[in-house]
Amino acid sequence: MTSPLILVNLKTYRESTGNRAHMIAQAAEIVSRESGVTIGIAPTFIDLHPLCHHFDIPVYAQHVDGCDPGANTGHITVEAIKTAGAAGSLVNHSECRLTLADIEASVRGLRDHKLISVICSNNESTSAGAAALAPDYVAIEPPELIGSGVSVSKANPEIIRRSVAAVRAVSPSVKVLTGAGIQSGECVRIAVDLGTDGVLLASSVVKSKEPAAVLRDLVSKL
Amino acid sequence: MTSPLILVNLKTYRESTGNRAHMIAQAAEIVSRESGVTIGIAPTFIDLHPLCHHFDIPVYAQHVDGCDPGANTGHITVEAIKTAGAAGSLVNHSECRLTLADIEASVRGLRDHKLISVICSNNESTSAGAAALAPDYVAIEPPELIGSGVSVSKANPEIIRRSVAAVRAVSPSVKVLTGAGIQSGECVRIAVDLGTDGVLLASSVVKSKEPAAVLRDLVSKL
Amino acid sequence: MTSPLILVNLKTYRESTGNRAHMIAQAAEIVSRESGVTIGIAPTFIDLHPLCHHFDIPVYAQHVDGCDPGANTGHITVEAIKTAGAAGSLVNHSECRLTLADIEASVRGLRDHKLISVICSNNESTSAGAAALAPDYVAIEPPELIGSGVSVSKANPEIIRRSVAAVRAVSPSVKVLTGAGIQSGECVRIAVDLGTDGVLLASSVVKSKEPAAVLRDLVSKL
Amino acid sequence: MTSPLILVNLKTYRESTGNRAHMIAQAAEIVSRESGVTIGIAPTFIDLHPLCHHFDIPVYAQHVDGCDPGANTGHITVEAIKTAGAAGSLVNHSECRLTLADIEASVRGLRDHKLISVICSNNESTSAGAAALAPDYVAIEPPELIGSGVSVSKANPEIIRRSVAAVRAVSPSVKVLTGAGIQSGECVRIAVDLGTDGVLLASSVVKSKEPAAVLRDLVSKL
Repeated sequence: MTSPLILVNLKTYRESTGNRAHMIAQAAEIVSRESGVTIGIAPTFIDLHPLCHHFDIPVYAQHVDGCDPGANTGHITVEAIKTAGAAGSLVNHSECRLTLADIEASVRGLRDHKLISVICSNNESTSAGAAALAPDYVAIEPPELIGSGVSVSKANPEIIRRSVAAVRAVSPSVKVLTGAGIQSGECVRIAVDLGTDGVLLASSVVKSKEPAAVLRDLVSKL
Repeated sequence: MTSPLILVNLKTYRESTGNRAHMIAQAAEIVSRESGVTIGIAPTFIDLHPLCHHFDIPVYAQHVDGCDPGANTGHITVEAIKTAGAAGSLVNHSECRLTLADIEASVRGLRDHKLISVICSNNESTSAGAAALAPDYVAIEPPELIGSGVSVSKANPEIIRRSVAAVRAVSPSVKVLTGAGIQSGECVRIAVDLGTDGVLLASSVVKSKEPAAVLRDLVSKL
Repeated sequence: MTSPLILVNLKTYRESTGNRAHMIAQAAEIVSRESGVTIGIAPTFIDLHPLCHHFDIPVYAQHVDGCDPGANTGHITVEAIKTAGAAGSLVNHSECRLTLADIEASVRGLRDHKLISVICSNNESTSAGAAALAPDYVAIEPPELIGSGVSVSKANPEIIRRSVAAVRAVSPSVKVLTGAGIQSGECVRIAVDLGTDGVLLASSVVKSKEPAAVLRDLVSKL
Repeated sequence: MTSPLILVNLKTYRESTGNRAHMIAQAAEIVSRESGVTIGIAPTFIDLHPLCHHFDIPVYAQHVDGCDPGANTGHITVEAIKTAGAAGSLVNHSECRLTLADIEASVRGLRDHKLISVICSNNESTSAGAAALAPDYVAIEPPELIGSGVSVSKANPEIIRRSVAAVRAVSPSVKVLTGAGIQSGECVRIAVDLGTDGVLLASSVVKSKEPAAVLRDLVSKL
């Protein structure tokens, strides 16, 4: 059985770009070694290569385009993030929504390059739709709880339970992450008990003055 | 067993708006009565109500938004098309792509109002993703063949066969339409033989000087 | 000198679609006749033709695409709204934002068909940018005040004053509408005194049980 | 008088990412030193920091978002490209179109951070609209000529001439670049003679086996 994945989305917060991204990555690496739990981070495109270079933890892009290399100004190709050393990418985050055709192209590109794909979804039905595209992970994030400080694990365990069932019905091999409002080891424990394979979170780690302490708490009940 | 559906997308061609939409609708109604085959049309929003009012054939919107009535300038709500008399709507046509979240909201809105949803998809994988959203139909239109004059039935039957299988694997109750390049009764026959429940087409009917003749040919081998 | 324009955006509120759109249109026509002030309405695409047909007041589309008739499923062409009888169209409303290239194409299409264009803008600088595209009107709507119940005339007259100056600097012939939070004759009076040529508003008329009374108040100080 | 700017958009071509971006940057730096002409490059986000770090030529982002640092997964903030060492950014490239509101926010963000903004436009009218947003440069690229191998300087000098006039009428301080199909010193010479302040180009440098030779030719008639 795989260890759960704690995936920290660094977004574009001032507290998590440049030097501070390095500090959070370092905290993640330390806590991951201590605990044996896989902790990944998803920095900005600009921080992607340096973090891949300096740390052993898996580093994810926050978004990737499914287009081939070519005349695609402003886009991020799968080849580019692979060359940078990324382990995979978020796809269709609620702050970066894509068309169905583009999600599929990104996931296919990631698969073709042997990178991990994490499609973000907003409810039970889109979780099933995402699962049908055969990504590695579907991360369920009820939009109303993102950044709310209210954990989906506690506020709406039913949506997690139903989404896991919906994903499993489409494809038993697709793993599920619980997102939105995750902030403590208890949230992570509930998420795993609900049948998911880890969590996707951001502000509770990024905004903390002691990311290592938050990360230690997050893995404490696994 | 349901009769196959011939769904004619009128797009915004000059040959298929205003009075000419009425002429095509009339041809569709006549041929439908003669043959017993269901022929639907999808006119512009502006032609939607008058066509629903004057004809007995099913009339579809070309697009619908999943948002509720409210502060949504320029949008088309499900309530609006239902009030206009629509039987359903295309969703995510290749010329009007939506995010996964928006596709799901549109399909859910249509279902809640007991209207028929037809999600357009571009390949096998997105057909499966669309099927997971539980629409009434998935219409597979390989983008490279749309408006090409080359029928997907003949050029790429494998994509149809595989898409049907992919849709069935996700949900046996979702019906499939074959789109892109459909132009003759033979194309329709092949589409049905490949396991689909009808066709979605546009230019071969719209651009014809005798839409009734084309429609008669389309239903001739059913 | 032209009379100011009171332009009522009906959006997709339940209170302003179908029969209720007709009631508001009728109120607008009556108050316009009584007062001599031009009152226009912008209904949904589906209500556009019937309202143009039944009323003498100018009827605007809420959005229009700059594309030519053709393979543009789900789009609204300028030809379509002209055939329906529209006087013009809103373009780039905050709830229906367009790219710069698409705004220009829509405005050009409206001009080519001798229809009135109203580009919505969000601040002084985009008002100047919109004016450079040579529309008939630029409607300034600070996003934070839309639907707020707080009138931009009172809350932020400076943004109106500066936007008028910015528009005039680019093109003296482009007229300006004041939008966001307009709800009374006093708001309209201030808007006109600030140098604008009328107002764009929605909820205060649409949500009222007596639209005619609100409209009478709106024109009362002109 | 400023020297003209030769701005090379590296897009996401395989020939211009990673190590190959370094090779083109080096060629640009050498030819710039030889000739005294400013040559800038616009690499992918991932190559941005390393190229800024290793070369003295101005390095531009291909796109930047106007949003503040924060919860904006997958976005690129102005702060991020400034920290990376960028001189400025392209905005609204034809392969990465933005809404008017977003273009304005990006340009304002760049100005606030003392970075150079280059808004891409597609015709005379959008060039004027772009100029009204007070960027440093407007780069006119008729879409039908991008990547065509046909130089706008030769194929359509009138669009350049009229766009320069339109930009000047709105703001004399905004500089203009000629884009689309630029491939030789003669194209650059014509572009400058038409009153523009340089060129924006991509494939003729990127696809060449000897970028330095192409760059030498490009600056040869200045």
